[in-house]
Amino acid sequence: MAVYTEVDDDALESFLSEYDLGPPTSCKGIAEGVENSNYLLQTERGNFILTLYEKRVKREDLPFFLGLMEHLSAAGLRCPLPIRGRDGNVIRELCGRPAAIISFLQGLSTKRVLPDHCRQVGDALARLHLAGASFKLTRKNALSLEGWRPLFTATRDRADEVRAGLAESIERDLADITARWPADLPRGVIHADLFPDNVLFVADQLSGMIDFYFACNDFYAYDLAICLNAWCFERDLSFNATKAKQLVGAYSRVRPLSEREIAMLPLLARGSALRFLLTRLYDWLNQPAGALVRPHDPLEYEAKLRFHGSVRSATAYGL
Amino acid sequence: MAVYTEVDDDALESFLSEYDLGPPTSCKGIAEGVENSNYLLQTERGNFILTLYEKRVKREDLPFFLGLMEHLSAAGLRCPLPIRGRDGNVIRELCGRPAAIISFLQGLSTKRVLPDHCRQVGDALARLHLAGASFKLTRKNALSLEGWRPLFTATRDRADEVRAGLAESIERDLADITARWPADLPRGVIHADLFPDNVLFVADQLSGMIDFYFACNDFYAYDLAICLNAWCFERDLSFNATKAKQLVGAYSRVRPLSEREIAMLPLLARGSALRFLLTRLYDWLNQPAGALVRPHDPLEYEAKLRFHGSVRSATAYGL
Repeated sequence: MAVYTEVDDDALESFLSEYDLGPPTSCKGIAEGVENSNYLLQTERGNFILTLYEKRVKREDLPFFLGLMEHLSAAGLRCPLPIRGRDGNVIRELCGRPAAIISFLQGLSTKRVLPDHCRQVGDALARLHLAGASFKLTRKNALSLEGWRPLFTATRDRADEVRAGLAESIERDLADITARWPADLPRGVIHADLFPDNVLFVADQLSGMIDFYFACNDFYAYDLAICLNAWCFERDLSFNATKAKQLVGAYSRVRPLSEREIAMLPLLARGSALRFLLTRLYDWLNQPAGALVRPHDPLEYEAKLRFHGSVRSATAYGL
Repeated sequence: MAVYTEVDDDALESFLSEYDLGPPTSCKGIAEGVENSNYLLQTERGNFILTLYEKRVKREDLPFFLGLMEHLSAAGLRCPLPIRGRDGNVIRELCGRPAAIISFLQGLSTKRVLPDHCRQVGDALARLHLAGASFKLTRKNALSLEGWRPLFTATRDRADEVRAGLAESIERDLADITARWPADLPRGVIHADLFPDNVLFVADQLSGMIDFYFACNDFYAYDLAICLNAWCFERDLSFNATKAKQLVGAYSRVRPLSEREIAMLPLLARGSALRFLLTRLYDWLNQPAGALVRPHDPLEYEAKLRFHGSVRSATAYGL
């Protein structure tokens, strides 16, 4: 994380006095999450995550994020459950920042993705979409179509520092993808960032989905396209159609995809690759001094963008 | 921490297969410890700390550090217990670094030191000294007398960047303290870094002493002098004689101090203040790019050095 707020014991004690969790028996800052300060908090009642929201998460979005986790947990999904204080509130203040406590989920994220992990992720993603349909709040996707142009404007002048010709090729893709972007696909609440880092497994069984801080309303199939990019490429950036087939197959057994959603997958995958290319490019060009986390390589997503631009149809994904 | 080694799941699984701890149910990098990469590891057997030793800890010192923790645990002290693998070994390799698993201790370090905390620390420090007396390995204190001159040489030219005249005043103190440093005080294994960060409390009862990676052989009273500096000054750098009295009083009820040890306390406290002034000055002038932890202010220890230089005898400490 780039920023880390230290919580002193007085502040923690007074914060916890608003909850029925008992006194803390341990509280360790964890090196996880680029956006927020996270602590693994232990009390006699169990393990929890205490999060202090740093400036990249907007305070007005917190009721959506935390309300969604509560809604999905109530629907039986394996995601963190926000803990309510005695006053019924989930969001309060700690060290001058908005803060919340959520339940701790067991499991480890996998760095060695197997086809069966993809199957479980497809299944869980579809269940998330179905369960999210009855959630009342909405949040616009700031990193879809309308967000790409401003990101490009902010990175264009220096994009060629990363690769000669990158600015020009993004310009072309942005124009083309924008022109063909659909307006009419089934939509609802999506996770929007379901990368391997954000999925936990215990003994190769999916035990949790975490980090809902990009969740928003958008096309369901766009969320699936994000997962195609995040889960189905090998380290050498070759595309693994077996993994894609497992991911999409498992998804559509729970929430059947329409013909049109399937037909649009390559374009949605291009759009998703462009989104991560642009945000990674921005982060690459704007590395804060003293950041712990090295930014991801933007060119990984340029390669993925090229791949999806080259496919004729979703059959290339093994569908 | 300045450095953080990421452990991937294959490597972790193969590492854990050397132990009888069961498969991992969680493993989170914790933002603790400047020198090493630390993970809070959970398995069905409980909570553990997995440490990968980065370059500032010398591999050849690990048998001393880990052996000492095991020795002290066996003597009933509340300190981490190194976990042996099936082969009986405590130290093995992970991600190209020496690594070990130790037991996890409950508790939180206090940022609001009370006199009773000081009493408990004095008691625990004396018990550590007594229990350490039967430990067979030894380790020279690299940061005592002989280590100060090289640290000063490495920082002298730029010391005045921190405060005008600092180099000259350190030069004077170094010469004076060196000339008067004793050779004949009772000595043995000391913790050498028992700051509030390294002492855990549950409900204001001392539950653990951690971070033995500066432990070494030196004067017992020098360890107590380190604690005087670490525990008995207020945030405004005023000296709290009540805390000092609790610390030293509790210590000497367990391990009585000789007249000479008491008489030498002000000088030992000056030496200890100089040691932390020099290492903080070095770290301040050599901040690595990308470090998460901001170095401590060296001038805090200059003020403490001044204080101890001004006292006539240990009676100033409330003794």
